[in-house]
Amino acid sequence: MVVELISVGTELLLGNIVNTNAAFLAERCAALGLSCYYQTVVGDNPGRLLETIRTGLSRADLLILTGGLGPTGDDLTKETAAQAFDLPLHMDEHSLERIEAYFRERRIAMTENNRKQAMAPEGAIVVDNDNGTAPGLILEKDGKRMILLPGPPNECRPMFEKSIAPYLRELSGTVIFSRTVKICGQGESGVESRIKDLEQLENPTVAPYAKSGEVHLRVTARAADEKEAKKLIKPVVKELKNRFGSDIYTTQEDVTLEGSVAELLLANGLSVSTIESCTGGLLAGRLVNVPGVSEVFKSGYITYSNKAKRRIAGVKKSTLEKYGAVSGQTACEMAKGCAQQAKADVAISVTGIAGPDGGSAEKPVGLVYMACSVCGTVQVKEFRFQGNRAKIRESAVSAALTLMRQCILAYYSEKTFGK
Amino acid sequence: MVVELISVGTELLLGNIVNTNAAFLAERCAALGLSCYYQTVVGDNPGRLLETIRTGLSRADLLILTGGLGPTGDDLTKETAAQAFDLPLHMDEHSLERIEAYFRERRIAMTENNRKQAMAPEGAIVVDNDNGTAPGLILEKDGKRMILLPGPPNECRPMFEKSIAPYLRELSGTVIFSRTVKICGQGESGVESRIKDLEQLENPTVAPYAKSGEVHLRVTARAADEKEAKKLIKPVVKELKNRFGSDIYTTQEDVTLEGSVAELLLANGLSVSTIESCTGGLLAGRLVNVPGVSEVFKSGYITYSNKAKRRIAGVKKSTLEKYGAVSGQTACEMAKGCAQQAKADVAISVTGIAGPDGGSAEKPVGLVYMACSVCGTVQVKEFRFQGNRAKIRESAVSAALTLMRQCILAYYSEKTFGK
Repeated sequence: MVVELISVGTELLLGNIVNTNAAFLAERCAALGLSCYYQTVVGDNPGRLLETIRTGLSRADLLILTGGLGPTGDDLTKETAAQAFDLPLHMDEHSLERIEAYFRERRIAMTENNRKQAMAPEGAIVVDNDNGTAPGLILEKDGKRMILLPGPPNECRPMFEKSIAPYLRELSGTVIFSRTVKICGQGESGVESRIKDLEQLENPTVAPYAKSGEVHLRVTARAADEKEAKKLIKPVVKELKNRFGSDIYTTQEDVTLEGSVAELLLANGLSVSTIESCTGGLLAGRLVNVPGVSEVFKSGYITYSNKAKRRIAGVKKSTLEKYGAVSGQTACEMAKGCAQQAKADVAISVTGIAGPDGGSAEKPVGLVYMACSVCGTVQVKEFRFQGNRAKIRESAVSAALTLMRQCILAYYSEKTFGK
Repeated sequence: MVVELISVGTELLLGNIVNTNAAFLAERCAALGLSCYYQTVVGDNPGRLLETIRTGLSRADLLILTGGLGPTGDDLTKETAAQAFDLPLHMDEHSLERIEAYFRERRIAMTENNRKQAMAPEGAIVVDNDNGTAPGLILEKDGKRMILLPGPPNECRPMFEKSIAPYLRELSGTVIFSRTVKICGQGESGVESRIKDLEQLENPTVAPYAKSGEVHLRVTARAADEKEAKKLIKPVVKELKNRFGSDIYTTQEDVTLEGSVAELLLANGLSVSTIESCTGGLLAGRLVNVPGVSEVFKSGYITYSNKAKRRIAGVKKSTLEKYGAVSGQTACEMAKGCAQQAKADVAISVTGIAGPDGGSAEKPVGLVYMACSVCGTVQVKEFRFQGNRAKIRESAVSAALTLMRQCILAYYSEKTFGK
């Protein structure tokens, strides 16, 4: 089945917002086994939108339109889609009740134009919106379909996951099932070179997605039912586990790298602290993304100046003078001092040159040292990151999470197998 | 002049990456006074790309294509664009020399397929790429134009700014000039309600762009020359300054909120420190975005647990027991303790409930207290942010930067005018 994405909104045409919905829907459609050859952005202009819909219907089985379902006069996606299929609009009482309840609960006066949002083209499937007032709509005519979704990502995405994905799965007759194998501590080209043979597979398919400091491999199978699909996926995931071992931090869709590190800390009852120079709080900030991390993360430090490194972490003046602030020795003393100061089982330090200034031939921009202490055992690592200041800092944060993970795993495997 | 954006890349169709180039180019084209009615994403497929180019040329004066200029066989944008204009390709010696030098400098072996990147359609203007190997190209035929840019944002954007924007400015005959008035500490709807009259203006135009915790107003004039354009813009910017006063933190394109705060600290020789609970390092991380901030930012703290708040900032046990960790009183003691500990002139604290858990009827998710101490004068502020955990934390960081700015300005105005 061929799908085409149409994003409606003048704010997209003006570059006011980035089209993250298109990326989300494209990724989800690919995972559902739908082929997508075009994405279009068009403004809130009924003539141009109608032309875009007609072109889309001439080359795809299904159009997914986002945006333009709001209450104002500018919002015309529903009206235009109904016109393309020549369907009259009528009041959908179920939607009207839901919209009225939405305003009642929030104690906001409902305006007349909100009633417009409850109108639906004849014969449309109305999809409840749990996070806003505009319901989604599924229209069908002569074997062609249009799915209309609200534009705000926090309405569009949950609606897609809850109602549209199951509908599409049912529609395609076959079941598409995928699992994501998430790898940290390896570059994209390195991972790709080790899965060239698997990328040739047709069912399941294996596709790499590069994220900052991570590579995700999506294994997708198509089968008559979920059980069969899982059976196809299992040996491939097993093979990937053989090849990448403990560099795989999860095979679960909703687990992030920081989440997997937090899980490891929580499972082993390890408290953690951070001490950052060039990343300046971003590493702690990412750990704190994880709800519930407060169980193990009590405090962290940003020691940007040499003085702060000495005062807070007790880094020796002689170390700073002899090796410099950006050195393995300083990173090591920072981690040790941080563990002691915060009374934490695990402590990680980051010190480096994020640029644009401060680099030299000997210590170029992008040079970063990290040290991770796990119950007194310290490991130091040197990195050379590429890119601008923001990119270097982002890469350093991902590398620090990976290093923490590796050090905790190494600590327990040594404890288990003896030295 | 009507422009259309075409983004080429299967990775966009698969949702592997978000199309940030389109947002960047759309915003820049709008600022240059070009009208854009369609954006299209198409894969690395010559047939579909050719169709997209032909459709685009039928309705626009100018197409800007990004992506597909790489060295591999998949990259066919240049070949397809040349085909659409019926232009033969030839070797561009200047580009070849640059590409050879690029590899020589990096001591990487140049492969044969990199030579392909130096091929140019006959009569094309070749645009140097300072950040990669694929040059940009400007093609013209029968009054229609195509501009081909490399896909990687760090190549596409600098090339657009340096070479394409001046070309488009020249082409349009008139000069488009704009200034951005950046406002912090005010909501979007609040700002919009105060500029309704100015939004009706035709030359210059005034358009609002909402950023996290900020509103940017872009004032754009069209005139025969830059001097004339600036003359048109000046009274409108002056009027905006009258209306929004010190809530305007800059009228310069490249100054960020954190940059303006850093500037204020540097100009007044004030050292600064941060102490964060729910934002967990993100505030410090954003301050450290500013190169050179190390002059004033020496250290920061993340005090996630009550114990850490007591140990690091000396928050009283009785304060935590009586008012709780999320209270104005705790925020105030955190800021004072932080200033003392870090020996900083300015200290800012953030403590709140980012959710999803931890909220109550009395203290709901989104409740955040901040305190800012400037040379001993402390101001405490309560916020109620909306959204999920990530959104609440992001809003809190912007609000904290705004609060710091307001407190520093207030401190100096009181010092100047007396109490």
